[in-house]
Amino acid sequence: MRKIFTVVAMLMLCASASAQEFRSAISNVPGNEYPKVSNDMRAIVRYTSKTAKKVQVQGGEGFAAQPVDMVNDGQGNWSVELSGLTPGFHYYWFLVDGVQVNDPASVAYFGYSRPTSGIYAAYPGEDYIDAKDVPHGVVREQWYKSSVTGLWRRAYIYTPAGYDEGKDKYPVFYLLHGMGENERGWSLQGRMNFIMDNLIAEGKAKPMIVVMDCGYTDTMDPATGAIKRSTDAGSLADIYFKDIIPMVEKNYRAKTDRDSRAMAGLSMGGFQTMNIALSNTDKFAYIGGFSAALMMGGRQQVDLKTAYNGAFANPAEFNKKVKLLWFGAGSEEKAFVDAAANMTKQLTEMGVKVESYISEGTYHEWHTWSRCLKEFAPKLFK
Amino acid sequence: MRKIFTVVAMLMLCASASAQEFRSAISNVPGNEYPKVSNDMRAIVRYTSKTAKKVQVQGGEGFAAQPVDMVNDGQGNWSVELSGLTPGFHYYWFLVDGVQVNDPASVAYFGYSRPTSGIYAAYPGEDYIDAKDVPHGVVREQWYKSSVTGLWRRAYIYTPAGYDEGKDKYPVFYLLHGMGENERGWSLQGRMNFIMDNLIAEGKAKPMIVVMDCGYTDTMDPATGAIKRSTDAGSLADIYFKDIIPMVEKNYRAKTDRDSRAMAGLSMGGFQTMNIALSNTDKFAYIGGFSAALMMGGRQQVDLKTAYNGAFANPAEFNKKVKLLWFGAGSEEKAFVDAAANMTKQLTEMGVKVESYISEGTYHEWHTWSRCLKEFAPKLFK
Repeated sequence: MRKIFTVVAMLMLCASASAQEFRSAISNVPGNEYPKVSNDMRAIVRYTSKTAKKVQVQGGEGFAAQPVDMVNDGQGNWSVELSGLTPGFHYYWFLVDGVQVNDPASVAYFGYSRPTSGIYAAYPGEDYIDAKDVPHGVVREQWYKSSVTGLWRRAYIYTPAGYDEGKDKYPVFYLLHGMGENERGWSLQGRMNFIMDNLIAEGKAKPMIVVMDCGYTDTMDPATGAIKRSTDAGSLADIYFKDIIPMVEKNYRAKTDRDSRAMAGLSMGGFQTMNIALSNTDKFAYIGGFSAALMMGGRQQVDLKTAYNGAFANPAEFNKKVKLLWFGAGSEEKAFVDAAANMTKQLTEMGVKVESYISEGTYHEWHTWSRCLKEFAPKLFK
Repeated sequence: MRKIFTVVAMLMLCASASAQEFRSAISNVPGNEYPKVSNDMRAIVRYTSKTAKKVQVQGGEGFAAQPVDMVNDGQGNWSVELSGLTPGFHYYWFLVDGVQVNDPASVAYFGYSRPTSGIYAAYPGEDYIDAKDVPHGVVREQWYKSSVTGLWRRAYIYTPAGYDEGKDKYPVFYLLHGMGENERGWSLQGRMNFIMDNLIAEGKAKPMIVVMDCGYTDTMDPATGAIKRSTDAGSLADIYFKDIIPMVEKNYRAKTDRDSRAMAGLSMGGFQTMNIALSNTDKFAYIGGFSAALMMGGRQQVDLKTAYNGAFANPAEFNKKVKLLWFGAGSEEKAFVDAAANMTKQLTEMGVKVESYISEGTYHEWHTWSRCLKEFAPKLFK
């Protein structure tokens, strides 16, 4: 049991010296004092209701995986202090007399296939994720019509600082989100723009375009307007090759050779990356899985000699062609660590070059993936 | 009483022919069938709970200004049909045994100073707001550090189709949001990018850069990290002149003469526009108020001969200098119609040229402002 939850009524807390260490979370709607977080990995959440009989908080594995009771100060201010948090971003919500409610004080993040509250716990010593006084790129909402689905889709596209002023072409990194999230996750929960800004400013990563599209192949019933969400990797590959990549290479100053194309994705996006990039190594030279759901679709049972369009049939050729095959995961997410380790072991035995990374002390949550991005991006296009 | 609410259990509704006319709302999280809307201005909302004893829906004035009871089909599917809606976007939420809950099936829109559900009712005959097969601009998330507040701020900046390919400089339209909303409101709730794309493609509006920044002058307590939200128009003017306008003119191919600068805002943003642009007509040539809160800060009591930095002291000079002073409002929002009419009447009597517009049948809601944008943007930079 890594976490110990302690319940402290607000009145007691306000009187204690330790309260001084708490700061408003950066994920709060501006103007809200609570939630607060501390550098020793605690958080205080608060919900106001004069009529509720029971209020609990619940969230991601590194925050409050099971509901934790909150305490009413008698004035309708329900609060609790959580400790032993893991760093970075966690989803959370309240259970107010059993009804799941978002925190009105939190920005809404799209997770669990619905708008969900989020809290940035502290991340001591990891300032690569902060907005710093360095040149900043922009993230663009780019709409385009899919020839595959007939629907308008929205990509988020990061262009690095200097893109507008220059004439150079840039390599392109396709970065995929996970299940129940969407194309905005990487820039909002993952703060990918600040991570890339910092890496590029320090000369650790090459300036690159980063494309974040939706991992769902939505189609519409024309009679009812109902959108059918699908995670079908085949259709998504179709959308990448027929719509997304051509759209990016038409509208942006993108290099178009395979050595200038990378793809990585988290969880479901990692599974999709294997199906799209690893199955098409004539088009991608850098391939990454961040907590990749390699077990999806029974993939762990497949014969790696023939899987992924025969990518590994000739290991020597693969090693020459693919400049990077990389797997990262959080130490606390056993199924994903095991999936990556299993794949890495098999591939290594076959003579395929693979790199791997473990994010210490993190679960299947965004901080694992922010760290993966920080590790992975510097290896691209060099 | 413009609206009649009728309660229909889902089982009855599914058996009726009229249900065929309902389509999933475009504001739904993809994959959700409900809410549904019809072209005869009805909507069906739905919430699932097997344990709730009472579920109600409430929202914007043109939707369900007072709570409306929903009916349980016996399986935990609570629903209600609302009729007589006004067109376009409305905020809404559920009251589940009295607890305010967003609809997990709706995209979260930032309104009422918190993430809030939203529903696009139909808008028959008003396709200017739709994504069409025309060249599309992009909306960029542009971070910059404010010299006034010391904090990082996020602007949303629309660049029109062709911006990346060309070398031309563009005029700039500063477009402000309302109270309790933020810099993303115009592109999300207001669909301003599609409105501008369509107007520009049809040759009705000039290609322009549109800058949407935050209308709050947030500052941070360094000891606690708490953000203080302020609507102070003076500080906001400072941020515009010291930070936003220089940032835009440095980072974008922006024309920098006053004839190439416009500002308009909705509600609180309209009040701020008067304080920023009307008080500085040496810097802005086009000025608009969309349901402008002209009554804020007791402005309606002021002497127009001296107000706004003496802008109207010499009407003939004002008419020569300011190419457009424009007020729009929705016919159903009396206080704002009256404020605009009062100002227009006084100014006209003084000999100041003013244009005005009434959006028929709409309240203090986004459809009024989308229509205002459609009317106002074509008048700029000509």
